[in-house]
Amino acid sequence: MIKMSPHSENKKGSLFVVGLGPGDVDMILPKVAKVISSATDIVGYGPYVDRIKPRSNLTIHSSDNRVELERARLALELALDGKTVVVVSSGDPSVFAMASAVFEVIENGPTEFFEINVTVLPGVTAMLAASAEVGAFLGHDFCTINLSDNLKPWDVIEKRLRLAIQGDFAIALYNPRSKARPDGFKKTLSILIDEGVGDRLIAFARDVSLPSQYLSSMRIVDATPEMADMRTVVLVGSSYTRKIKRDGVKNFYIYTPRYYGE
Amino acid sequence: MIKMSPHSENKKGSLFVVGLGPGDVDMILPKVAKVISSATDIVGYGPYVDRIKPRSNLTIHSSDNRVELERARLALELALDGKTVVVVSSGDPSVFAMASAVFEVIENGPTEFFEINVTVLPGVTAMLAASAEVGAFLGHDFCTINLSDNLKPWDVIEKRLRLAIQGDFAIALYNPRSKARPDGFKKTLSILIDEGVGDRLIAFARDVSLPSQYLSSMRIVDATPEMADMRTVVLVGSSYTRKIKRDGVKNFYIYTPRYYGE
Repeated sequence: MIKMSPHSENKKGSLFVVGLGPGDVDMILPKVAKVISSATDIVGYGPYVDRIKPRSNLTIHSSDNRVELERARLALELALDGKTVVVVSSGDPSVFAMASAVFEVIENGPTEFFEINVTVLPGVTAMLAASAEVGAFLGHDFCTINLSDNLKPWDVIEKRLRLAIQGDFAIALYNPRSKARPDGFKKTLSILIDEGVGDRLIAFARDVSLPSQYLSSMRIVDATPEMADMRTVVLVGSSYTRKIKRDGVKNFYIYTPRYYGE
Repeated sequence: MIKMSPHSENKKGSLFVVGLGPGDVDMILPKVAKVISSATDIVGYGPYVDRIKPRSNLTIHSSDNRVELERARLALELALDGKTVVVVSSGDPSVFAMASAVFEVIENGPTEFFEINVTVLPGVTAMLAASAEVGAFLGHDFCTINLSDNLKPWDVIEKRLRLAIQGDFAIALYNPRSKARPDGFKKTLSILIDEGVGDRLIAFARDVSLPSQYLSSMRIVDATPEMADMRTVVLVGSSYTRKIKRDGVKNFYIYTPRYYGE
């Protein structure tokens, strides 16, 4: 057993990897806001760094999508130069965002990268913002799966989907569909129906917490592939997930109860 | 397909169900802090409401553990009386916290409960705070399982653990062990070893973000049941989860890479 002390002292620059949450500025942690306010350099994908207010002593390094390793390397090199660097992602940096890319580059990079003090700060990830917005969709055991097959084979995704259904987990699906991957989510819907759960609830949540927020829900058999895009998180219910509503009252919620079985 | 409009107008009081995050006051969302500052009544489990600063026009209703439904009912009745009520949980309210309990009471309660405007606000859940603190433990697909068998049969938990391992997910385990359930986590470790993954990493994270924070990590075969308690979240690695460290440098991180397979 090793007692952890991951943050040793006396390093060169500093690197923070932070999550900006789902979009609403009031859903950024104060701890993250403080780190951003003391940064010299911000590194991230264009739409995320666009959320950072420019100021005279701050350099913003905006990059394209799908260049995570180059972005991570730039951030580490700036930190080696003594800068205070913040890598920004939306949501939470662990959940299909920049934190792992940074550590991949550290692991495979020069020894000096280990001399940088790297701090990861969490954030509100899309699935939990979506779950809360509709009620408590993820109120019981659940699985979180990235549907992108850019970095893993499709058969791993299919296997995990089937096992998650067999375990009667609720499921959160990230990156369901993009122009480069138009068919993955179509296949996902087919797998869910093939597993016999077509009558369960599915919810699509896009831009949660922003003025452009769009939510929809239906039975899986009534869902179509084009309901999802890269800005959508998809929630799939367990056999217990339910929509509650009373006659004459418009208010409704989707939640998964805490109990299971008797 | 139903377009959602879960928040209809013209209700009686208001009920907010919020997450306070892992413990650090700088990890409470500004949106949650604002709701708390405008509340007339706070409802929650003792240690969580103790985090709320008292003020003259605020009534704090503190309750024991394991009375979630009574607590939810009290909150709904206060809201029916026109109060602005905030139900507080630690972490995120969807993740094994109060949001589902509130909807269980609404579903089974009087019609009037549907006239209350209920808003759930997310927070930073323990597993993501722990993942960030060690690096990016949950950097790839993962499952989230509550080990408490108070509200579900143990065989469901065991089945889900085995399926999660078979899918090579990383796993976050909540409520691993309590005085009333001393054996569940022992059985969990046996199941993991039985599934042949005893050489994988496991991390124990207690009181993340607080001065009392305690983190440890080891191979699963070297873990013992008493390493976990009710304030611990346990993270179990996939076959790809790794600890990185260089000779002569104390700094290390645990992360799961984004890639899988080739």
